[in-house]
Amino acid sequence: MAAQDNGIQLMDPDQLSVELIEAQYALKETKGKSNAKSVLILVSGIELAGKGEAVKQLREWVDPRYLRVKADAPQAFNHKQAFWQPYARFIPAEGQIMVMFGNWYSDLLTTSMHVSKPIDETMFDDYVERMRAYEQDLKNNNVDVIKVWFDLSWKSLQKRLDDMDPGEMRWHKLHGLDWRSKKQYDSLQKLRQRFTGDWEMIDCEEEAERDQQFAQYILQMLKHCPEHLHKAKGRWKQAEVPESLLAPAEIPLEKNDYKEELKLLSKKVAEGLRFDSRNVVIVFEGMDAAGKGGAIKRIVKKLDPREYEIYTISAPEKYELSHPYLWRFWIKIQPEEKISIFDRSWYGRVLVERVEGFANDVEWQRAYDEINRFEKDLYDSQTIVVKFWLAISKDEQEARFKAREETPHKRFKITEEDWRNRGRWDDYLKAAADMLERTDTGYAPWHVIATNDKNTARLEILRAIVKQLKSE
Amino acid sequence: MAAQDNGIQLMDPDQLSVELIEAQYALKETKGKSNAKSVLILVSGIELAGKGEAVKQLREWVDPRYLRVKADAPQAFNHKQAFWQPYARFIPAEGQIMVMFGNWYSDLLTTSMHVSKPIDETMFDDYVERMRAYEQDLKNNNVDVIKVWFDLSWKSLQKRLDDMDPGEMRWHKLHGLDWRSKKQYDSLQKLRQRFTGDWEMIDCEEEAERDQQFAQYILQMLKHCPEHLHKAKGRWKQAEVPESLLAPAEIPLEKNDYKEELKLLSKKVAEGLRFDSRNVVIVFEGMDAAGKGGAIKRIVKKLDPREYEIYTISAPEKYELSHPYLWRFWIKIQPEEKISIFDRSWYGRVLVERVEGFANDVEWQRAYDEINRFEKDLYDSQTIVVKFWLAISKDEQEARFKAREETPHKRFKITEEDWRNRGRWDDYLKAAADMLERTDTGYAPWHVIATNDKNTARLEILRAIVKQLKSE
Repeated sequence: MAAQDNGIQLMDPDQLSVELIEAQYALKETKGKSNAKSVLILVSGIELAGKGEAVKQLREWVDPRYLRVKADAPQAFNHKQAFWQPYARFIPAEGQIMVMFGNWYSDLLTTSMHVSKPIDETMFDDYVERMRAYEQDLKNNNVDVIKVWFDLSWKSLQKRLDDMDPGEMRWHKLHGLDWRSKKQYDSLQKLRQRFTGDWEMIDCEEEAERDQQFAQYILQMLKHCPEHLHKAKGRWKQAEVPESLLAPAEIPLEKNDYKEELKLLSKKVAEGLRFDSRNVVIVFEGMDAAGKGGAIKRIVKKLDPREYEIYTISAPEKYELSHPYLWRFWIKIQPEEKISIFDRSWYGRVLVERVEGFANDVEWQRAYDEINRFEKDLYDSQTIVVKFWLAISKDEQEARFKAREETPHKRFKITEEDWRNRGRWDDYLKAAADMLERTDTGYAPWHVIATNDKNTARLEILRAIVKQLKSE
Repeated sequence: MAAQDNGIQLMDPDQLSVELIEAQYALKETKGKSNAKSVLILVSGIELAGKGEAVKQLREWVDPRYLRVKADAPQAFNHKQAFWQPYARFIPAEGQIMVMFGNWYSDLLTTSMHVSKPIDETMFDDYVERMRAYEQDLKNNNVDVIKVWFDLSWKSLQKRLDDMDPGEMRWHKLHGLDWRSKKQYDSLQKLRQRFTGDWEMIDCEEEAERDQQFAQYILQMLKHCPEHLHKAKGRWKQAEVPESLLAPAEIPLEKNDYKEELKLLSKKVAEGLRFDSRNVVIVFEGMDAAGKGGAIKRIVKKLDPREYEIYTISAPEKYELSHPYLWRFWIKIQPEEKISIFDRSWYGRVLVERVEGFANDVEWQRAYDEINRFEKDLYDSQTIVVKFWLAISKDEQEARFKAREETPHKRFKITEEDWRNRGRWDDYLKAAADMLERTDTGYAPWHVIATNDKNTARLEILRAIVKQLKSE
């Protein structure tokens, strides 16, 4: 008996159902609490092994209202999209369970089996490594990732094809593989073995046992309580605050020089952005009143509003908080959006959230790597990431705050909170220093624009964009 | 001066900016309140008239954080998608402002100008009429719709094309029209006149005035306070409760007949759903424990979970509440989803929300028409809508509730709330009667399944699906 081979004791189905439902409700209860988690179940396997049936049976045993199924046909990678991008929207929120048939692994297999220029083993393994890193980031952010492979021997597969009702044939052809070809079967098996090392394997020879084995594994994983770390293990090594941040340049530009050069550069930037075949993500961070808005205005001056999107980032919404921190950015960046400009960004995690204590030590200290991986994934999918830190002096900030308060149509830009943040000036500088040290990468370098002169800053920003577009 | 021609007094720009920002903040403050509204600005017009520049200028005058711009290139209609489907996701939530360049009107123009088999005038006018009805539904649900056409004479257009920087040419070719062709210009003007009767027209000869005229119009509209009706005008004409709902059939089926026919019908339903070229939306409503879940299970029995999506509808989330009532359904139904099954649905508006008072009289009484329009739009975009009302007797419900409470793995299905709802049995019957009378349409008929025998109900449901698929 297969069950004995696997060493699994089969439970009474009614009992299994009761325990699954209880585990589901317990999971639901964690929403918004310190032990919150969600569960993402990736399902893949051999055609006709019965993953569909097993999921259907699971759905009958649980409360179906709290188990969603996302089923896309696997698709070859789009070179302008990171592997997680088609799925990010469907990452379950705290308390939820999501089963994904189509997932990054099925896309990887499809890409390897179908595309005329197949990816080689090194690339394949590199993808797997990055997928695991992405899943680790999910886990760290309260999304448990469960991976289940439904396996079936060549012999049984052929028998099932023989027995199949012709009316059902259409679906099974959808995946585009010829399951009558031993060669294709073997190469698929060989490929998937490169990643299934950390997957739960379900032997699908016996149908009843298959469904129960799957459901019991899910139950076991639902019961698993992840440990959320809140205290950092080691001591944090604070980076030194760079001199430029402490003492930004003061020299103002000649008004005439500025106007002329601005005109020239705006045009260059517009053309550079427009004609580059890649997408561009531009990120602005900096102290309040450092000139982010004004700089953005100059970047888009010669663009049509239909060519770009500006995202102004403030505190996350409630529903966003029940997802991993980066999630709200994962779903914003779209492959069809040519130019995305962020007025503040995911760096909030290591700036305001660190300084104000919205993220605990473990969370913000982990975020540098998460962010680097995120930007690397964008870079690898034909997206240029240009990042600016705008630095001004503390005195200059005060002068600008006061000027804003005295100008009626700028008054809205300045609030109590800005004055309060100003009180934590040094903490923000430290946070910026760490950020600049840890996330200044070859694929997504920081441009530090440190000057108290607005016009100089704007020109430097435009020049930096032109330069980075050219250099890549 | 154009400003004088239009009879519009131009404000001091700083003052305009201050007032715009104040109006924005006032709008933002309405969120969640009884005077809540959001603002959707549809922008279209002649190429090079300067709608892009005007929106950019508006964005500079307002607080850009609370003004979003959605800019898709216009696209020809997809025959599997209602005109509002590509845009539903971007309908602004309460307190928000959204500018849409690409919108249903630009798609309509594109379809008319580009598609090889163009739509005739009657169809065109029919589209316009339905768009206006959709916008009225938006307005009734707190989304103010503002439509602005940027117009430019043939002569000025040619002059601007002559003066244009060749570096900027690419964008202007994107829309696929030849703006050097007088014939194309004229036919576009003729077409758009079929719908711009209720649009604000901006004469774009003078650039500075154009931007200000636009912004001033927006300001005026932001200040406009919609009147939210809460009391119905006339007396409600309650439908009579049909006999079948009061006394569902009692005759049970022979077990053997059931099993055989179920098998046959499941297969027929699966094939019918799978091979139909249209999408299918199946809706289940009915008293608690009437057998919705069991029926759904039988429908999907011979389907692969990847072929369908089941939506279990419960109370709306907080962010959904800040949108029109139907919004959460607009965004769920996707043209690429072949089979969508709703375990409860948008009919909640005229059932639970009516009975429990979550919707006021005006809201639920208006909802029948809104729902009919919604289903008609689905029907017209190649989607079959199959609707079931499952009726059981009050005694049968009690028996099922008790049986559930005694079965461990079914206990989760029964809550205090179910017993409470049962207390309002007659109110639910009345609500169902009104619903059946007012939303039983040729394009989306109701199937009333009134029997206390579960097996009979299941077979009737499967038969009804087969029949409706064939009849259309």
